[in-house]
Amino acid sequence: MTAQATSADVDAVRRKIETLGFRAHIIPGAQRTAIGITGNPGAIDPAEFQDLNGVAEAIRVSKPYKLVSREVKKENTVVSIRGVPVGGAAVAFCGGPCSVESREQILESARAVKGAGGQLLRGGAYKPRTSPYAFQGLGEAGLKMLADARQETGLGIVTEALDVENFDLVEEYADCIQIGARNMQNFSLLRRAGRARKPVLLKRGISATLEEFLMAAEYILSGGNYQVILCERGVRTFADHSRNTLDLSVVPAVQRLSHLPIVVDPSHGTGRRDQVHPMALAAVAAGAAGLLVEMHPSPDNALSDGYQSLYPQQFAEVVRDCSAIAQVIARKQPLV
Amino acid sequence: MTAQATSADVDAVRRKIETLGFRAHIIPGAQRTAIGITGNPGAIDPAEFQDLNGVAEAIRVSKPYKLVSREVKKENTVVSIRGVPVGGAAVAFCGGPCSVESREQILESARAVKGAGGQLLRGGAYKPRTSPYAFQGLGEAGLKMLADARQETGLGIVTEALDVENFDLVEEYADCIQIGARNMQNFSLLRRAGRARKPVLLKRGISATLEEFLMAAEYILSGGNYQVILCERGVRTFADHSRNTLDLSVVPAVQRLSHLPIVVDPSHGTGRRDQVHPMALAAVAAGAAGLLVEMHPSPDNALSDGYQSLYPQQFAEVVRDCSAIAQVIARKQPLV
Amino acid sequence: MTAQATSADVDAVRRKIETLGFRAHIIPGAQRTAIGITGNPGAIDPAEFQDLNGVAEAIRVSKPYKLVSREVKKENTVVSIRGVPVGGAAVAFCGGPCSVESREQILESARAVKGAGGQLLRGGAYKPRTSPYAFQGLGEAGLKMLADARQETGLGIVTEALDVENFDLVEEYADCIQIGARNMQNFSLLRRAGRARKPVLLKRGISATLEEFLMAAEYILSGGNYQVILCERGVRTFADHSRNTLDLSVVPAVQRLSHLPIVVDPSHGTGRRDQVHPMALAAVAAGAAGLLVEMHPSPDNALSDGYQSLYPQQFAEVVRDCSAIAQVIARKQPLV
Amino acid sequence: MTAQATSADVDAVRRKIETLGFRAHIIPGAQRTAIGITGNPGAIDPAEFQDLNGVAEAIRVSKPYKLVSREVKKENTVVSIRGVPVGGAAVAFCGGPCSVESREQILESARAVKGAGGQLLRGGAYKPRTSPYAFQGLGEAGLKMLADARQETGLGIVTEALDVENFDLVEEYADCIQIGARNMQNFSLLRRAGRARKPVLLKRGISATLEEFLMAAEYILSGGNYQVILCERGVRTFADHSRNTLDLSVVPAVQRLSHLPIVVDPSHGTGRRDQVHPMALAAVAAGAAGLLVEMHPSPDNALSDGYQSLYPQQFAEVVRDCSAIAQVIARKQPLV
Repeated sequence: MTAQATSADVDAVRRKIETLGFRAHIIPGAQRTAIGITGNPGAIDPAEFQDLNGVAEAIRVSKPYKLVSREVKKENTVVSIRGVPVGGAAVAFCGGPCSVESREQILESARAVKGAGGQLLRGGAYKPRTSPYAFQGLGEAGLKMLADARQETGLGIVTEALDVENFDLVEEYADCIQIGARNMQNFSLLRRAGRARKPVLLKRGISATLEEFLMAAEYILSGGNYQVILCERGVRTFADHSRNTLDLSVVPAVQRLSHLPIVVDPSHGTGRRDQVHPMALAAVAAGAAGLLVEMHPSPDNALSDGYQSLYPQQFAEVVRDCSAIAQVIARKQPLV
Repeated sequence: MTAQATSADVDAVRRKIETLGFRAHIIPGAQRTAIGITGNPGAIDPAEFQDLNGVAEAIRVSKPYKLVSREVKKENTVVSIRGVPVGGAAVAFCGGPCSVESREQILESARAVKGAGGQLLRGGAYKPRTSPYAFQGLGEAGLKMLADARQETGLGIVTEALDVENFDLVEEYADCIQIGARNMQNFSLLRRAGRARKPVLLKRGISATLEEFLMAAEYILSGGNYQVILCERGVRTFADHSRNTLDLSVVPAVQRLSHLPIVVDPSHGTGRRDQVHPMALAAVAAGAAGLLVEMHPSPDNALSDGYQSLYPQQFAEVVRDCSAIAQVIARKQPLV
Repeated sequence: MTAQATSADVDAVRRKIETLGFRAHIIPGAQRTAIGITGNPGAIDPAEFQDLNGVAEAIRVSKPYKLVSREVKKENTVVSIRGVPVGGAAVAFCGGPCSVESREQILESARAVKGAGGQLLRGGAYKPRTSPYAFQGLGEAGLKMLADARQETGLGIVTEALDVENFDLVEEYADCIQIGARNMQNFSLLRRAGRARKPVLLKRGISATLEEFLMAAEYILSGGNYQVILCERGVRTFADHSRNTLDLSVVPAVQRLSHLPIVVDPSHGTGRRDQVHPMALAAVAAGAAGLLVEMHPSPDNALSDGYQSLYPQQFAEVVRDCSAIAQVIARKQPLV
Repeated sequence: MTAQATSADVDAVRRKIETLGFRAHIIPGAQRTAIGITGNPGAIDPAEFQDLNGVAEAIRVSKPYKLVSREVKKENTVVSIRGVPVGGAAVAFCGGPCSVESREQILESARAVKGAGGQLLRGGAYKPRTSPYAFQGLGEAGLKMLADARQETGLGIVTEALDVENFDLVEEYADCIQIGARNMQNFSLLRRAGRARKPVLLKRGISATLEEFLMAAEYILSGGNYQVILCERGVRTFADHSRNTLDLSVVPAVQRLSHLPIVVDPSHGTGRRDQVHPMALAAVAAGAAGLLVEMHPSPDNALSDGYQSLYPQQFAEVVRDCSAIAQVIARKQPLV
């Protein structure tokens, strides 16, 4: 739609799409609204829409992913997590422990994040664990502790939903629902996320191609939830100096093809505390919209992932140095 | 337990385990019964059990996976799918289309499998698809068509459960429930499979290590379902002459560490029709307990995976040649 | 050329090619002779050659590799190593230690290979070692020991040339010159191998694509040496249950695109003694023309690669079981 | 040695080492001189050296690589290429075309590099090419053109030696000799580089582990050449949005284990022009000592790698933005 299009214009287009038996996806932007169409069995003639009031352009999307594509929406999407913009000019910093372990631990973490200049708190109440015998998270009790930490600090909460069964509960407490790397192609979970009213942070699978990553996001958007943040967290390779290989070139690659914001998790992406700071800086320099960093008030006593969690002071250095980098490089919308 | 142990002996051990507050897993074998213990927070003194009637040995398992380990059960497990043994001396052949497309298509497929000497029919009623806009399977209608094919041919049915939501339905119709590669670490689904009364075929994730693969199986066994078949279906590498890289060395590697049978899927493992026959033979030569092969009555018209599906005649050649190989090599239990 | 073409016909074609300023490659086959052309800056009109005496077909090769392509030569190439055919109906077995360590060690190895029914002896006199401080091989003294072993047993010798500097010496003693995986794209070495009068065994690089592998062979053929055997020896992946991942699907993939024979090295391909036997069988079942297997008279005392070397008795079992597999499967030329 | 050690002290240690029959490696640093020992068949008692004049510490190196290790030399090594320091506080920028194509092309390139603020000129006179039929470089004529460009602009020259045969010639013209990724384990070439009097830039092999990378450098240092710069240029993975996957976490990983400087080549590392700028910034943010960037005066007419070569204006933006990043982050020696 043109920047001047009225909501009546948008509505007219929506009705026309629905009359044809298809689904209309109204994706608002800062300047212009984009409207995607799904459910059409074959190609639609752009001429059907070209001349409606307020329509700037009718484009046939050439990619297998539609709604996530820059062809549908040229402007960057900025996702708001409890008022914190992700995808705009500023870098969004999300820190916190791997797992919520106790009220005191998560409150301390939240204070440290806040004190360092972070805006978002991460922490898992439901944990995907390789072993059935490992600590699986505190469940709803953990979600409540996160809510308490939010109340005290005002930080937005990012926490993972592992399955459809616990999704309602997570949606109730979280400000942003994380879908983990192992679940990137859990299509039932993606469909449920498509019906959620909260933003979703979708992690790239450990061996997902860019197209598979975008198609997973497409599942969520096609369900009507357009508030999706992508997250690079390392891929599996032969390299053994880091637990995973952080693939930062996916940041500009995503930005070229999609309007969705992409953030980076250097903690899982490297799996080693001493690589988190340099790779966090690298991620911001590469253009990441934000960072997801594991930080623990006492990493040596963490129930999970302690070896890759930063000390609070290290997290503060990450925020400080990344902010400095963000200021000296022009963080502008990529050419389209 | 010794080969002479009575069911009263087994029961006494079970009660002792439960009295200690742990869970007993009674895993029957051809010669001897193995009893695994889970739920213990720390190490248990083997002396607690050593002197009970019928106990041959009390072993502390050294691996992170317990019940799937050969330390717990030395004998190979033979899983029976509707009377067809998987893991014994004979190779089990499972063929059929990627998706159930119609009653006629699946009946024709079943007759072709039967005619070629196969014992099991595969076919998806629920399909995991990279794109939300692709054909997602016929659902329950597909399951019913599979049941009809079983009734006509007597073949056992192997079909996939995609999520907890449709698991009950799949369990009702299937003789063996497949868990796909993308779901290998869908822990909620694995836990549900652990409560199933039907055998489970667990496919290796596209970038799963052997330990992660065995830990995923451990989720199922720890839930009380000991009828698990592992399946190698190719891993993701840089190589581009095949869609995936079929990693046959995982067959002897699994056999060394686990008592569970392992089968191979050369169709997904290569993604190219012309590589299926040589790799099927290779899989049997490497010791695979069975094969899962895509075959379609008319591959060129298949709704999915046609390019990797065999023609019925080619499937018959696979069964014939693999059977010949199985006869000339000694298919014996690996040394433990 | 047609099967009836005379050597005068072949010569006339050769002269015509040379008159045009190009290079003619006369590649003999069991039935027909193929003539490749290189050195042409652009496409040549097939009509130039179509009507010459004895010409069956003039084909423009569509692939980046020319002389190795099945388009140039439809028949399988059979390479003869001191009279042992590689690429024909029988499987060629090459066994021996990683390094030549002493006269006694290599003689014992040769007797064991011979006794087991093998035809070729392997053993390195020049060793590529990751560390500059590791044993680098016995050099010419080692080559002489190999020659002695040949004299006693009649086995053909396969040994590696590491660089252009020692190539002359290796060529003098060897019956087949190996180019190792690390040198697959050492183009100076490939060019030198193209001028050799002995067959060359070219190992696939640890992360080489099929096209890169065939292009490396093309370097050798384009230099005028058409006696090239390809060898799969495992690629590098994330998998950790074997040292490398043996990629057997490259066997049918090579056979589809090239007339050159391909053999498999399950010792380096797995890096573990207990996986060598099953993967050797798998390789032959997949269609490999031969096997390269590390065997040591006393693996536990080997100076290199002892953990992956077979005991002599195990090598004999590999030869016996692989021969049995070769007999039951039709080893026929792939369709072209 | 202590910071106060005299050259007589160093000499006394050297003589003692040589008297014992070993080789002494005197590696100077800004503050202190390190002396490495190689050629010892087993462990040496540190007490042998502890009490000599000027000896600060005698350390037994625990790693398989010795001279490249930080255990031998704690201070960062700064390599000087024609007066340009690599490994110090400033980022070194090396730009230029893939291949030297003509006098005019390389002069124009050199002027563009100089104008943008770069200090070093790259360009290949000998090119490793996958195909024997592709352009292989201008050879000595190309080296002379590079020398002319140096004379006009004062830029130091970085160019590749492909093999031992042409090494002398490259050494004569170059200010820094590049060893390419395919040759990282060409041990004869590494040994020749160990005898060179010029600095060597060693690229990481496409699937080399960190240990293999450092061991390759060890070959050069053990030959007596301590002026080695490491270079990350991407590894081969399944990912297909870039030609290789640039593995930036190897930068901090190298810095932890070795005193050698590491630079990054984002051009080969991504293989796509649009990813070079973001990944160059990321490399500097991660701590790279310098950048190697392909730039061509007219990329669309380049004989090789045009699609990944920057336009001169883009190269200037890389230099400008990377310099800004280097200024805001503290580029300090990593903790040891």
